[in-house]
Amino acid sequence: MRDPSIPNELFQENERTAPTHEGRRYVDIGPFHTESGGYLPNVTIAYETWGVLRGMGENAVLICHALSGDSHAVGWWSALVGPGRPIDTNEFFVVCMNALGGCQGSTGPSSMADDGKPLGSRFPLITIGDIVEAHKRAIDLLGIGRLHAVAGGSMGGMLALEWTVRFPGFAERAFVAASCASHTPMQIAFNEVARQAVQRDPKWRGGDYPLDDPPVGGLAVARMLGHLTYLSPASFERKFSRRLQNKERYEYTLGVEFEVESYLKHQGEKFTRRFDANSLLVLTRAIDYFCLTDLSRSRSRYLFVSFTSDWIYPSWQSQQLSEMARSAGLQAEHKVIDLPYGHDGFLLDGELQGRAVARFLR
Amino acid sequence: MRDPSIPNELFQENERTAPTHEGRRYVDIGPFHTESGGYLPNVTIAYETWGVLRGMGENAVLICHALSGDSHAVGWWSALVGPGRPIDTNEFFVVCMNALGGCQGSTGPSSMADDGKPLGSRFPLITIGDIVEAHKRAIDLLGIGRLHAVAGGSMGGMLALEWTVRFPGFAERAFVAASCASHTPMQIAFNEVARQAVQRDPKWRGGDYPLDDPPVGGLAVARMLGHLTYLSPASFERKFSRRLQNKERYEYTLGVEFEVESYLKHQGEKFTRRFDANSLLVLTRAIDYFCLTDLSRSRSRYLFVSFTSDWIYPSWQSQQLSEMARSAGLQAEHKVIDLPYGHDGFLLDGELQGRAVARFLR
Repeated sequence: MRDPSIPNELFQENERTAPTHEGRRYVDIGPFHTESGGYLPNVTIAYETWGVLRGMGENAVLICHALSGDSHAVGWWSALVGPGRPIDTNEFFVVCMNALGGCQGSTGPSSMADDGKPLGSRFPLITIGDIVEAHKRAIDLLGIGRLHAVAGGSMGGMLALEWTVRFPGFAERAFVAASCASHTPMQIAFNEVARQAVQRDPKWRGGDYPLDDPPVGGLAVARMLGHLTYLSPASFERKFSRRLQNKERYEYTLGVEFEVESYLKHQGEKFTRRFDANSLLVLTRAIDYFCLTDLSRSRSRYLFVSFTSDWIYPSWQSQQLSEMARSAGLQAEHKVIDLPYGHDGFLLDGELQGRAVARFLR
Repeated sequence: MRDPSIPNELFQENERTAPTHEGRRYVDIGPFHTESGGYLPNVTIAYETWGVLRGMGENAVLICHALSGDSHAVGWWSALVGPGRPIDTNEFFVVCMNALGGCQGSTGPSSMADDGKPLGSRFPLITIGDIVEAHKRAIDLLGIGRLHAVAGGSMGGMLALEWTVRFPGFAERAFVAASCASHTPMQIAFNEVARQAVQRDPKWRGGDYPLDDPPVGGLAVARMLGHLTYLSPASFERKFSRRLQNKERYEYTLGVEFEVESYLKHQGEKFTRRFDANSLLVLTRAIDYFCLTDLSRSRSRYLFVSFTSDWIYPSWQSQQLSEMARSAGLQAEHKVIDLPYGHDGFLLDGELQGRAVARFLR
């Protein structure tokens, strides 16, 4: 599938987010009541750590992943996290947990129920607050009594924000990249079309599909739609222009004509091999429900980062968060980064974002 | 389905684009060879006219419709076309033809073959040039020997441009709204995800579905994706904000929670009742193939219009066209209109666009 004519860079993001189960550990947090009134009799949280914990958590940094991420932060966020990186695992004890509702080891719709079938439609809808609540219980069980910082981008940024208002003062600092206080109707609309792609696939079967026959068609379309929003017009142009895929002229086929089509299909299909369709529904719903109106309960310091070319999470949303923090009498900085990568900037940029984060953690 | 709490305005565009078969006429243009090497033994073009033709076409204005439009220009473009409107049917003889490859009376994939089945996958892929070629034959048969102007927005703008280079001088003027010389990779990508939604619906069946059991799921998703691009962030905000659909608080359901979701579903489902899935594939391909590199063959005058809030066909693309025309020694004006409607601006704005068009046609 991989075309040697496409530079490696194109595939970088996804290769870095590919699941690595090595080093993943699990903690049972017991029964869990969701904000929606749902009940999960036994919740497991999968996590990974790097570095050595000092004291109660004087050097602990909790990383929160985005929609399709996982606990392997040193993978998908290696631009920022690792030995000698801005969030330096030689100095900090870094912990990253798979989201409740996800599909990488923490309890989610693809987890097995007592009847030996996946929870599927029996998994309740959840909120960003539920995920943070579950992670806090896991953090308690790990014996971490405070956090030097909590950090994340996109959905991970919402999780970081939620930490600061739900457990005031627990995290001294919050680094929030390419995120927002609440989704706009346009952001909800993009998520809804992705959900519709899954739900209208006959193989979705109301959420109760066998895991070996999932709605791959709808899930692939949903992921392709996601990729439309991760890139900027400029990065689409730079990566693909109007180049044809291994041909000199149009073949007049509904198959692949343009390189960009091959990229989308590749990303869509690859995603279906590592991600659960119901997790996409549950987590996008949690994101759309998230609605932070003020930060008055918070006692954290904030660093917000946004990217000029990120059209799906535009800078004004981070600016709004920064003003929300300052209105609450909190220290807040908003760094607007002018790079052409679109929303993917928060994953790719180690340098400008990295300098700001390294300074912020000091 | 229609919720009285949503203002009429939301449904305006689509009610105006709803097919009206009244007044539709047909002309057979005979056998047709497509640019892709395909062959259609007998092509029909459906069209409508308003007003009275003077001479050879001294007062003839040909309107070209966009992807999901049809020949009923006085419907979908009533902001600009009609008695007393900027393209005044009391003064001009207005003709509008359904695109070859469409599904509103002109030959397309849903047309019946001799075996009594729809052409389906047997309908060849076509180009913007093919559509113009077919329409030109129809125009000849109607006895129209010249055009005062050709006009269109989005795909219709590409058709208008193609008229000016394929039949130099035939149209004295070309009015091109919210269009471009060629799709960027991001524009191709949005079209490709829509095509994938259709093609991955098992009911698509390689294009050979019975017309009473079409791939409605995939087609609805494709249309919802289209609507994401027709509106601007500001118009999403103004129409929907984060309002819930007939409820005070979240119901924690995968059904409709937000008004914007209801709108998208309504638009998606409505579309499946009036549009053919294969036509969507064929016409989006024609759009993506379109690639105008210069206007040196043209002998027309141009008016280009673009909208500041149109993020899918940004103003720079119209500016590029305008510069292309001037480089070819042709008269060209580019009017950038600052309205919040997004790409839909070309359908909705009768006033600013209208004044420019009325002046241009004088």
